[in-house]
Parts: sequence; structure tokens; C-alpha cells
Amino acid sequence: MAADAMSPKITLELLRQLRQAMKNSKYITEPIQAYIVPSGDAHQSEYIAPCDCRREFICGFNGSAGTAIVTEQHAALWTDGRYFLQASQQMDNNWTLMKMGLKETPSQEDWLISILPENSKVGVDPWIIAADQWKNMSKALSSAGHSLVAVQDNLIDAIWEDRPARPSTKLITLGLKFTGLTWQDKVTALRGKMAERKISWFVVTALDEIAWLFNLRGSDIEYNPVFFAYAIIGISNIKLFVDSKRLLGPAVREHLELDSPSKPELTIQCFPYESVYMELQAVCAALVPKEKIWICDKASCALTQVIPKSHRSAIPYTPLCLAKAVKNPTEIQGMKMAHVKDAVALCELFAWLEKEIPKGTVTEISVADKAEELRSQQKDFVGLSFPTISSVGPNGAIIHYRPLPETNRTLSLNEVYLIDSGAQYLDGTTDVTRTVHFGTPTDYEKECFTYVLKGHIAVSAAVFPNGTKGHLLDSFARAALWDSGLDYLHGTGHGVGCFLNVHEGPCGISYKTFADEPLEAGMIVSDEPGYYEDGSFGIRIENVVLVIPAKPKYNYRNRGSLTFEPLTLVPIQLKMINTDMLTQKERDWVNDYHKKCRETIGAELERQGRKEALDWLIRETQPTF
Amino acid sequence: MAADAMSPKITLELLRQLRQAMKNSKYITEPIQAYIVPSGDAHQSEYIAPCDCRREFICGFNGSAGTAIVTEQHAALWTDGRYFLQASQQMDNNWTLMKMGLKETPSQEDWLISILPENSKVGVDPWIIAADQWKNMSKALSSAGHSLVAVQDNLIDAIWEDRPARPSTKLITLGLKFTGLTWQDKVTALRGKMAERKISWFVVTALDEIAWLFNLRGSDIEYNPVFFAYAIIGISNIKLFVDSKRLLGPAVREHLELDSPSKPELTIQCFPYESVYMELQAVCAALVPKEKIWICDKASCALTQVIPKSHRSAIPYTPLCLAKAVKNPTEIQGMKMAHVKDAVALCELFAWLEKEIPKGTVTEISVADKAEELRSQQKDFVGLSFPTISSVGPNGAIIHYRPLPETNRTLSLNEVYLIDSGAQYLDGTTDVTRTVHFGTPTDYEKECFTYVLKGHIAVSAAVFPNGTKGHLLDSFARAALWDSGLDYLHGTGHGVGCFLNVHEGPCGISYKTFADEPLEAGMIVSDEPGYYEDGSFGIRIENVVLVIPAKPKYNYRNRGSLTFEPLTLVPIQLKMINTDMLTQKERDWVNDYHKKCRETIGAELERQGRKEALDWLIRETQPTF
Repeated sequence: MAADAMSPKITLELLRQLRQAMKNSKYITEPIQAYIVPSGDAHQSEYIAPCDCRREFICGFNGSAGTAIVTEQHAALWTDGRYFLQASQQMDNNWTLMKMGLKETPSQEDWLISILPENSKVGVDPWIIAADQWKNMSKALSSAGHSLVAVQDNLIDAIWEDRPARPSTKLITLGLKFTGLTWQDKVTALRGKMAERKISWFVVTALDEIAWLFNLRGSDIEYNPVFFAYAIIGISNIKLFVDSKRLLGPAVREHLELDSPSKPELTIQCFPYESVYMELQAVCAALVPKEKIWICDKASCALTQVIPKSHRSAIPYTPLCLAKAVKNPTEIQGMKMAHVKDAVALCELFAWLEKEIPKGTVTEISVADKAEELRSQQKDFVGLSFPTISSVGPNGAIIHYRPLPETNRTLSLNEVYLIDSGAQYLDGTTDVTRTVHFGTPTDYEKECFTYVLKGHIAVSAAVFPNGTKGHLLDSFARAALWDSGLDYLHGTGHGVGCFLNVHEGPCGISYKTFADEPLEAGMIVSDEPGYYEDGSFGIRIENVVLVIPAKPKYNYRNRGSLTFEPLTLVPIQLKMINTDMLTQKERDWVNDYHKKCRETIGAELERQGRKEALDWLIRETQPTF
Repeated sequence: MAADAMSPKITLELLRQLRQAMKNSKYITEPIQAYIVPSGDAHQSEYIAPCDCRREFICGFNGSAGTAIVTEQHAALWTDGRYFLQASQQMDNNWTLMKMGLKETPSQEDWLISILPENSKVGVDPWIIAADQWKNMSKALSSAGHSLVAVQDNLIDAIWEDRPARPSTKLITLGLKFTGLTWQDKVTALRGKMAERKISWFVVTALDEIAWLFNLRGSDIEYNPVFFAYAIIGISNIKLFVDSKRLLGPAVREHLELDSPSKPELTIQCFPYESVYMELQAVCAALVPKEKIWICDKASCALTQVIPKSHRSAIPYTPLCLAKAVKNPTEIQGMKMAHVKDAVALCELFAWLEKEIPKGTVTEISVADKAEELRSQQKDFVGLSFPTISSVGPNGAIIHYRPLPETNRTLSLNEVYLIDSGAQYLDGTTDVTRTVHFGTPTDYEKECFTYVLKGHIAVSAAVFPNGTKGHLLDSFARAALWDSGLDYLHGTGHGVGCFLNVHEGPCGISYKTFADEPLEAGMIVSDEPGYYEDGSFGIRIENVVLVIPAKPKYNYRNRGSLTFEPLTLVPIQLKMINTDMLTQKERDWVNDYHKKCRETIGAELERQGRKEALDWLIRETQPTF
């Protein structure tokens, strides 16, 4: 477990200061009895910058999900099963750990209601709570006689002395060669959708949507090539809110046509990042009756509430989110190229591992470093797309494992090894998991691996009608495991951005039903069933796959059918497969897949002159059944 | 199509009268500009009594789903794809048909907003609109400056001269032999759930929940053994609202212990059906702060709004709905016995059909009649559980087909025949579909049948973890069809009551994600994939199946596994199967299933001395592959 050697953060003094601030008229007109510290940033990003790690600052727990609540008497943190151990080790005894998902654990609302004095005020920074969360919390508190209040000054920032500055990294401009569409085309298409639904303005708050729309990238948040910004798009206006220093370079100025816009309606007005609130107020003040503004219901409460209810059209996902999810031919080509380069690096890595492991000096961390080094040799490499999960034996059963010096295990010929890794290239984003054994796997390890493989193939080879939502495919990945009483406790797949976030909406493959949009040709998702045996090993087989049209025998009601094409082309270790458990169709799938790996990646390895990796690839992709 | 020979209802005068009523101060304080006529009754029943067929009365359309809206200028009816043809034939040209599901069709809200003058009032009877529908409609209208108003007097009733009386059929009492639990036990269990959630009162509005709770049945609504009633259950009170004439008989009085209650908290106070509103007001008036009342969010707006918001706890399904869905051992035994009797009747039917069809005199209607006759000979038969779908050739492609004299086809040796039928017995409810051919099916018919069979088996034989929701199994039923580009446009299964409604919540197997509860051992659902080729034939294979514990090889995290046991035991016609398309596992399933049919139903046919049916059963259940 990642936190084994950690000592808890001492929070007594910080809590005292926060409780002072909760009564301090410098920040609030009336004292509040509780203060909520959510995980996210003002854009509801999954990964956040150091300056936004406020929940970690106040309680010490640095996992990716968790909400802290501090009252006059109590301090409690809610997180989920992935993080129970880590949170309990990182927090001191001023904090109560609320284990989400357990029956006896109260919700934040119920807990607040059970401990607050009558007519209490609960404060939260409206910028880092999403509008839909605010609504639910506010409703629950009101029904019990309390109220949720927006505290404009963030009280953590008020007591955080050495808080890092908000990053403002250099912007990269992406040309047509990478994007397939100019930002002007994208704005025009967006306006078409707005006109269709009679929408006057659209407030863009998700960082990846802004990066995609303007064909710009940054590095403000690790692993995510995005930059802090907002945009407000009108039928004839484009307002971009970003640190003005970032717009000084000639490349960016030219890219955005800041100095000589081609058309008035494609002229970008630039504003400081912080002025989005006032500018949105100004936009709203000028609205005529019945005019509507789109904003995502996951946008911050602060920005959402600027828009009067009668003008607000809150949507579960935005047209940009959907447009971004359906990759255009240039993006698809880029993703394919990125995956070829990524496969080259991984073939090299596995060839290297076979040689090095017997020496007994290869560790989880050194593999992760080696993988990064090999990837970085590939063209247009930018960085990793998430922290590499490199795990030996029992560490593999920790789904979100990240090797640390104190947990670092040595690879051997006796244990299963799982590596889940990916990179950002200028032309695309990758994410691949392989599970391998360098000695002789046990029958049980092979049996479990083969169930997972059957699930992987069941999704990858599935044919399904146009209009099918991804969550309807999730059970295909589990059927073989279920049949033997096994399962895995995570979703099967997520959307993948193109040189953007490795996790993106609005499509995915999960048993959790969320507002996922139907899969359509051009979408790209991961297919990653697994099996995890606590204390022993973890198995996951992950490819990134492209949704493509399928041509089955019939075409019911002319709906058309879809299937998947694997973009990831890295051999699946044959040694781990119990061939007797595969149907003929599944064996054919494995052989066909390996043939494609051999041909496509083999050609590139040859071109790059990487002989050892080529030999490894050819050996690992022999048709064997 | 069921409506071929129908002529439209003449509605000019009725619409004139309704529009008068919409301005008549006898009914309303201020004129309304539109009046909504929903389909349902005050209990949101799926099937309704003749006195509640108000939407049919005003527009002529008598399908099971549809909403009429009348304004000063317009009259429009919304219904779905099953009913486009029928509705267009049953309505005169005063009505506009709004085809739901088509892109160009506006929602009721959007249509109202587009045609109403500013600040309009839209009226609806608050008793027949569910609270959640009211909320959505009201919100949409308000945001456009209109308002939704509750019209207490139903305006259709006001102009409906020969409206039938509300039925008040004789109540049947069910003893422990059929129910497994006394109503007192059920009330006590319910109160346990209320106490757990700190709930003081629970308003029961669904007719099947009331029937189940009190172990009473009626016949107020065709096919559904329910009776018009409400109940309000408190921690120490039981208030039953039902026509007092029904409580005069000694059997009912004794069953309910009306004259000599065993305990004060199990004393039933009886009130007239109509007084539920006033009595609920009285209950609410006596509440202390923080007391909560449970009511289903599908209950009528009228009753829901009696409860002040601060005291109201609206739930998507009630604890009775869940308790009723998980059958106890007595109910399971009863359901099994009902299915044995039902299978006896169907074996007789199929043996009879084989002899009679060559004579050329057997029609869709005569089979339906014969099936009812044979079922009625079985012990404790009460009636059918829904109108028999008896369909030859192209009629089989109409999913909700019901044969009428003008559509009635003759069964032959050349066409596929589909029969979907079921009955109510005192011990259980049945619902079974078989698709058969009495001559030689084409290869294509067999191919399609075999895809459907593969889907049926995939669900029936599925093993899945405890806690799995039914919707996660839906795709298993479709995978074989999808693989060939085919599909069916309905869900795969619904909950089935025990001598209660043939459709019940809160579980089911459907691609539509609704608030379904996880499947658990004791729940009973249907498994009924199909394939429908417009103008040619329809195929559906339906068994009622019981959720039972499964014992696979492993038991991941001690969660336990579940699978299904078919309760329906009627042979699946081997002639329709293309055996080459089945896996060995699927062949074994068919053979095992037929062995069980032969043994269980064979024994009963022998006991009943039904020799011809027994011969037929033995022949139809030979292991053949």
C-alpha cells in the first residue's frame, strides 16, 4: 500500500486556524458552523494542480477522491474503499475517517444534520463545488432547518501560508496536421449546435474542452496537457479567459489570430482568467427575455449561479464534450500513430525485462523509469498520461498502486507482474495494461488470466447496434469471471482523449449507470477487465479501442452496427493463457490480434532498427493454436 | 393491426363541452387554456377500470399508453410506436397524433409552450397525475411563464354522461397456505423498516401493494386481482380506505379481525375509499416537527401534496414493493404449482393444435379461447393474467397484438405461430410465450429462432454476483442477435407477482435503465427475448424464472452468486432450432430443461389422466443432441 511508511500530518494548529477563520468577519458576514473542503478545482478536474490540493493541505490525505468537513467540534473526511488504509495513515487523530460505501457510514448531509446545532450555516467555496452537488447538499440541509452558504474567500487559502502559485505554463499550438479541424471550424460547428437549440451563449469550464476547442495545449496539471482558462462562446463573440502573459508569444498570437482576425465573429476577445465572473455577469445583464445560456451541470456553483435561472440551460455534458469524443480522421490517424510508437517502446521494455530480471536488480520503480525512458525516445513524446502502475505480486492487487521507495518490490521469475502505463504524444494519448510472468505461472494464475482475456475479447469483438450505450457492454467483460464466481470492482472502460486527458466523457463501459452517450464510430475507449486477488496478484488486460462500423449478416431496421478496432498493439502473453478454456472464436481473435501486432509494430521496429525488440515481438506473436 | 376495421370516434361535440367546462366557474375559479388527460387512474395502475378510461372517452384511442391535451384551439394525443396506426384510426380529425420517439415530435411541455398565449393556466386532475410527472411538467411550464394548476373536479367526468361506476367486487381472503405470512406479520415487518428509517407513517397507494399487504384480492380491474383502496400505516395505526360494503361479509371481517382485534396496534380502522384525502390531512395536522411520512414518488400529486414538504419523504419504490418482489417459500411453492398446472394446459393445447390445424378451422381467436378453457379446468384457476397474444405469421411481428375478429388469421402448416398467455391461480400467476411451426419452418425462421433461444439461455443460465441489477443482464439476451445485426425493441424481462399483477417492480431485465433494485434470491422475473420481422413473423421465447443462489467454483469476497431456475416448464419446439448454431453448453441446457419438463409436467399429466398431452410431452422432450 502506497502509504505504508507515511506518518500522519499534524493538523491541530491548522484546524484551530480554520475554525478561527470560520468566525472571522474578514471572510464572512456571519459565523459558519461547518466548512466543506471538496477535492476538486474550479474546473472540476480529475487531476489537480498543487495550488488546488486544499483538502490534502487541511487533513494530510492526498488520494484522488475525498471530501473534508470541519465543524467547531469535529473534523471528518469521506473517501472510498481504495483509500481507507492510506487515509487512516495520513491523517492524525483530529480526523474521523468516513468510509464511503459501508452501510454504517453516514452521508455528509446526514452526518452534518446529526451533529449541527439548530439553524446552522454550512460554508463552502462555490468555485470548487459543482452546481449539481451544491443543489443536493443545499436541499438536504434546508430540509433540516440549516443552510448552505457560499463563502467567496476560500478559508483554506486564507490559512495556507506557502500555497503554491497557480501554474501558467507555456501554451503549445496544434496545427491542422494534428487536429484535423481549425479552432475556427470548431467554433462554427459549436455555434451550429447552439443555433439548433436556440442557445445564445455557452460557458466552457472544463479545461480539456477549452484546450480541444482552441487547438492549444499546456502543462498546468501533471499528465493532463491542459491550461487554466475559461471561455464564453456567443453566436458572434468569443471570450477567452486566460493569464494574459501566455498570449504574448507570436505563435499563440498568430494561431488565435489575435492581431488580425479573419472575420469579426471569429475574433477572440482575451480577458484575465479571474475576470470570467464579472464578464459573465455582464453577458447576463444584456440578455433579452427567453435567451438561454448553456452551462454544464458539473460546472462550479459560483459560475452557474451568475446565470439567472430563467436564462440557464444546465446540461449533463456539453456539445464540446461530445464533439471531442468523436475523433475526426486526423485525430484517429494520430491516435494510431501514437499507439504504434507506444507499442515500440513496450516491446523494447519487455525484451529488456526478459534479459534483466534474472539479474535480480529490476524493481517496480526501475521498470517504470525504463518505460518512460523508452517512450521518451519516440517522436513527439510529451510526457506520461498518468503515473505508471508498475506492480509485482501482491502489489498488483492494489488497483491504483503507484510504486514508492518503501513499497518497491523486485521483479522475479516467481511472481505475476502488472504494468499499466501510457503517454502523451503530440499526435495522441495512450493507455495500456499488460500482465506477464517471467517464469512459470501457476494453473490458477493462468485460469484467472484466461477469464480476464475472455472478457477482454468479448468486449473487443462485440457487435452491437448503433445507438447502444457503453454500459450495456460492461457485463460482456464479466461473464466468464461471473461464471466462476469471480469479478472485479471497477468499470471496464473509459473514454480516452487525443493528446488530452486519458480519462474523458461522455462515453465509457461501466456497470455504473451514468449519463453516458451512445457509442458512435470514431469514439475511443479503453477495454480493461481485470481480476485482483488480495495479497497475491493482480491481472488486467487493457487495450485502447476505436469504435468502427461493423457489417454483420443482417441490418435490422437499417440501424447499422458497430464494433471495436484495437489501437493498442502489444502482444498478450501466451504463456499466461490456458488455451483449453478458449473457444475457437477466441483463439482466432488472439491469433489475428498478434498477426496485426507483428505486421504493424514489426514494420516500425524494423524502420527504427530496434532488432532485439523485433525478435521478441516475432517470438511473442507466433500463432500457437 | 388491432384497429384495422375501426372507425374513429366522433369527438366534435365532446371537445366543445370540454372547452366549455374549461371556462366554467362551477369547476374552476379561473378559466384554463389547456387541459391534460393522462392515461392512468388515481393509483397509477398499468391496467385500468372502465370508469377510468377518460383519455379513451375524450379521443377514442384505447391503447394502454397515451396522454391527451386539449386547448382552446387544439387537441393532441401523445402515444408511442406500438400505437401509431391504431391511434390514427381511432381518432377523428379534431385530433393531432403526436408520435413519441420521433425526432420531430415535440414533448408535451414544448408543444404547450409553443402554442399557449402568455401566462396561460394548464389544468390537470391532480389525482391521476403522478407527483414526479407533475413536478416536471410544472417546472417546464413555469420556466416559460405559464402555470400548471390542479383542477379538483375531473372535467372529463363532468361531461361523461354514462360513465360506468367504480367497480366494487367481492374481496377474496387468502390464508397462510397461499401467503406464507399473515397480514399482521407483514405490517409488523413494514413497521420495522419504518422504524429503521425513523418514518412515522407510510401512505400506500399502489393497488397491488395493498392487496399483498392485507392478503386480500379483488377483481376491480380485469386481469389484475386487485381492488380500489388506500392504506395509511402508522407505527401504531392501520387505516384502510375501501368501499364499506366490501367489509360486510363475515370472512373478510374475520380475516381483518375487524370485530375482535388481537392487539391494539393491529386494529384496522376502516374508512370510505374517498376519505383518504381528509384523513391524510388529519394525520399531517397532528405531526410533530421532524416526523416523516413515506410516499412513493409515483403516487398521485393530490395525495402527495397533502403532506407538507418538510414531512414528506418521497421514495422511488416502497418497502412493500420490495418485500412483495422477494417471494417467501410459500409463495415460491405456489408459483411453482401454478406453473405446473399452466404447463399441463399448454401441453394439452399444443397436442390439440397438432390434430386440429390440418382441418383448417383453427384461428388465432379460437386458440386463445381453447387455451383459456384448458387453463380454467385447472385447480384454483381465477382468470387470465393478461389478454392472450395469439398471432399467426405477420401478426406475430406486432408485439402487443391481440386478435380481433377483423384481424383473425387461421393457423396453418405454413406460418410461424406465437402465443403469449398466462393465468391467475389462487397460488400464483403465469406468463409464457412459445413460438412454434406446425409444418416445416424455413432456414431463416430457424436461424432467427435459434438466435432468440441463445439469448434466452444466456440469461437463464447466467451466473452473476449478489447485488447485480437486472439491467446488467439485458445484453446477454441480445448478443447472438447483435452479432448478426438483429435486435428486438423491448426489454428482456419484468417482475411477476404471486397471484397479483403480471408486471410488477422493482426488478426487471431491460436496456432501459430505471431505478431497478438488485436481483436477490426469491425474486421472480420473465426472460423473454424475441425477434420480429415486420410483415413476416414474430418470435419470442418466454419463461418465468426464479432467482436462486448459485454455487460456482469460487466465491469472490464472499459475495455469493445467483442464477435462475425456470418455473415455466413447457417444451421449446426442437423443430425450430438450428442445432448447428448451438454450443455444447446450450445443447445441454435444452436437454436438461426438457428432461425437467418431462419429469415434472409428465407426472402431473399422468396424475390428471391426460394421456394425449402426455404422449405429446414425451415426444417433444426427447433428448436429440
